[in-house]
Amino acid sequence: MNRRSFIRQTAIAGTSAVAAAAQPAAAEPAPKTEAPKSESKDVTQTLARYLVAARFEDLPEAARKEAARSLLNWMGVAVGGSHHEAVEIALAAVSPFAGPPQAAVFGRKERLDVMNAPLLNGISSHVFDFDDTDLTTAVHPSAPVAPVLLALAEYRKISGRDFINAMILGIEAECRIARAVTPAMQEVGWHATGSVGSFGAAVAAGKVLGFDETRMSHAIGLAATQPVGLREMFGSMTKSFHPGRAAQNGLLAALLAEKGYTSSLQGIEAKRGWANVLSTARDYTAITDGLGTHYEIYRNSYKPFACGLVVHAVIDGCIQLRDENKLTADMIDRIDLDIHPIVLELTANRTPRTGLEGKFSVYYAAAIGIVAGRAGEAQFTDALVRDPVLIALRDRVETTVDKSLGQDQARVKIRLKDGRMLDRFIVHAVGSVEVPMTDAQLRAKFADLAVGVLPDDRARRLMDMCQGVERLDDAGDIARAAAT
Amino acid sequence: MNRRSFIRQTAIAGTSAVAAAAQPAAAEPAPKTEAPKSESKDVTQTLARYLVAARFEDLPEAARKEAARSLLNWMGVAVGGSHHEAVEIALAAVSPFAGPPQAAVFGRKERLDVMNAPLLNGISSHVFDFDDTDLTTAVHPSAPVAPVLLALAEYRKISGRDFINAMILGIEAECRIARAVTPAMQEVGWHATGSVGSFGAAVAAGKVLGFDETRMSHAIGLAATQPVGLREMFGSMTKSFHPGRAAQNGLLAALLAEKGYTSSLQGIEAKRGWANVLSTARDYTAITDGLGTHYEIYRNSYKPFACGLVVHAVIDGCIQLRDENKLTADMIDRIDLDIHPIVLELTANRTPRTGLEGKFSVYYAAAIGIVAGRAGEAQFTDALVRDPVLIALRDRVETTVDKSLGQDQARVKIRLKDGRMLDRFIVHAVGSVEVPMTDAQLRAKFADLAVGVLPDDRARRLMDMCQGVERLDDAGDIARAAAT
Repeated sequence: MNRRSFIRQTAIAGTSAVAAAAQPAAAEPAPKTEAPKSESKDVTQTLARYLVAARFEDLPEAARKEAARSLLNWMGVAVGGSHHEAVEIALAAVSPFAGPPQAAVFGRKERLDVMNAPLLNGISSHVFDFDDTDLTTAVHPSAPVAPVLLALAEYRKISGRDFINAMILGIEAECRIARAVTPAMQEVGWHATGSVGSFGAAVAAGKVLGFDETRMSHAIGLAATQPVGLREMFGSMTKSFHPGRAAQNGLLAALLAEKGYTSSLQGIEAKRGWANVLSTARDYTAITDGLGTHYEIYRNSYKPFACGLVVHAVIDGCIQLRDENKLTADMIDRIDLDIHPIVLELTANRTPRTGLEGKFSVYYAAAIGIVAGRAGEAQFTDALVRDPVLIALRDRVETTVDKSLGQDQARVKIRLKDGRMLDRFIVHAVGSVEVPMTDAQLRAKFADLAVGVLPDDRARRLMDMCQGVERLDDAGDIARAAAT
Repeated sequence: MNRRSFIRQTAIAGTSAVAAAAQPAAAEPAPKTEAPKSESKDVTQTLARYLVAARFEDLPEAARKEAARSLLNWMGVAVGGSHHEAVEIALAAVSPFAGPPQAAVFGRKERLDVMNAPLLNGISSHVFDFDDTDLTTAVHPSAPVAPVLLALAEYRKISGRDFINAMILGIEAECRIARAVTPAMQEVGWHATGSVGSFGAAVAAGKVLGFDETRMSHAIGLAATQPVGLREMFGSMTKSFHPGRAAQNGLLAALLAEKGYTSSLQGIEAKRGWANVLSTARDYTAITDGLGTHYEIYRNSYKPFACGLVVHAVIDGCIQLRDENKLTADMIDRIDLDIHPIVLELTANRTPRTGLEGKFSVYYAAAIGIVAGRAGEAQFTDALVRDPVLIALRDRVETTVDKSLGQDQARVKIRLKDGRMLDRFIVHAVGSVEVPMTDAQLRAKFADLAVGVLPDDRARRLMDMCQGVERLDDAGDIARAAAT
């Protein structure tokens, strides 16, 4: 499209750009050839129709169970992150302007209004990068969806069944829309959790608000026009802001649509709609095919260890050998790791000095697996990384790159001081789709994260409620139980 | 970038995408060749440094005067749009969750918190598409900036001088950033007012909050990650949502940065930063060159007529001939218009039936100019469009396309029943940069818009305060005066 046709299109919408062609255009770059746009008539409508019709009774038990597991894992990380500096700052920033104390900030005593609480809970649940992940798209599905539903559930009663149905549908929408543009959209530079998260939040909210097809489409349109999240922000607090703001954006979209605010009915697929504007490629069948027969939540995964996935197989192998052989650091002469090449590309730090640097050291990762038997957020502290026992063990770890291995594979070989050789090959690291975390492992992760935030009995009760959410008469009880 | 390198980049940030390469990738399109990315080290920093240092005392009088005119025009359209259906709906949607009554919704009795009021005032000021326009970028500069400053001014005292300085700097930032990517960004599909508006709001808020360079950069980064506005939304209420939400996004960015929330320091120019993600081309000199010597606000323009710019020259000519000759409809035998080709492409409706359709009829536009001597929002009602006198006159209008004319030019020839011939050639329509609306015309426009919303004396007082803002001890007085 040339400059003139841009001006025309803008003009017909009533803006004043028409006259621009008559104005001197200072320092404007020549437009590049336009990226190909795809147009399809009924993507948003097809999705909205399915979402409106989908009932709890239609859900397979496996999908419901996975949603409850997602909620359990998500609430654990939200509680665990609730006193992170990013949360404290955000709370200080919004509190003077917040509305009635309608909804809990999980793991804390403060209460905010329904629109502000999801910002805080979205930030806290993502700040450790320890929440659930759709491995195909890198979307963290629960972070924009769960806090919106929990806030609404405190404001107007939502049954556990309606809650689970809405959560599954929100995740369904955001993950399908993400798949339609993966990996092109991420390569453009979007953080998928933020850029699709508003869809998940809008759909989940719209579902519990009882939307018809038109309102659901308008909510999707209002979500489409509010993507959040540049990948440039990775490494700063703004990364965890993304799911929090996406949650708010989707909720606002739904609240506006509920009252009759109008938007496009083709927000996803129109020529100037979401998929064409944010991505250079798109496949709408990922959104529309198999609705109601396949569920995206089946692909959801949970991280057992509070560091990048590339070292999970190593940690998994170390913990297995430790537990089976009751290993302690002083028993070990040497650890040899056979690893995929990417492990050293990302985590080759031999001498980490901070907890954060420890997450990027496969040497420390192996050592903490042996010493602690776990690798949660509490195992990546500055103090532990500087612990002499861990430093000494870390220095006895050696690595060998093996290109035949998969990224979630590793071989751990331990030579003990008594001469014994231990060996474990990890075909798929725990936390992968093939070897998912067990319910017991999810509960142990939750319990670790809740230490110092919730009393043990409260944490256990909260876990029970998350796992049994569909049997709750009032899902808002979960939110209330997560407050201190 | 291929899929593998996407996965790597994501992984290093601690997300779980690393393992994605080991997972089956369902229905993913092959990535296209990546658009060229531009990287520059110091765009955000250079801009932030200027913004932090810029003082009221450095502003030329012309810039200050134009800012006051922008505020006058903006407040008029905000008051005028304050009871539009879109505003009523948005108010109903957010009110149950709003915080303390800290800030006025202009033209109304309701008060909202500082974070919610700008959404409403941003919507109302854009809902008629009658607010100020930067003709080079099609950005409506005041809509994301003014409501944020006015809300803050009610919450903590801001002098008129600080207000004007912050308003000019907010507009400076958003219009420069827009120019750097115009027209490529708009061609991608972004509504510029929404996609750059958060910068304007963040900068203006950051300025009155007294930011240092680091905080200003973080605020810019937090604004960068929250662009709003797909062009697909033109034609629905969501278009006016864009500046309102951009205002909120920028304000939230500043409030978070104030408390120490961290973001990128290269939010605009980084490889995965705003300009590379939203646009296919960029010229950073538009942002960094001539800071403090040229002011973007000099290019701001105001619409005298509540319809697309393409018919403004015709209306201008008709009103001039009417006023000079005391014309009434029954005196006129025939009107001949020589017009630029785009006029008929956009406004060829010979038989409009609604007020909105009247905006797309050059025939009605000429007739209303003659009959009413003005063409504000009140002249584009369903009732007037169906008025027999206007219909009869409209049907006596003929058009001739003249390719030699500019888009803001027109020749109006009127044959009277008494045989006289009147003729007026409009070289530049009123409201253009060459023939700006006079202060008196801006006041008349304001007065028209305020009818039925504010009492006449209140409207006059509010106009005086906007025009004299820099002499106010407390700019919050403007916001208080704009409430009913």
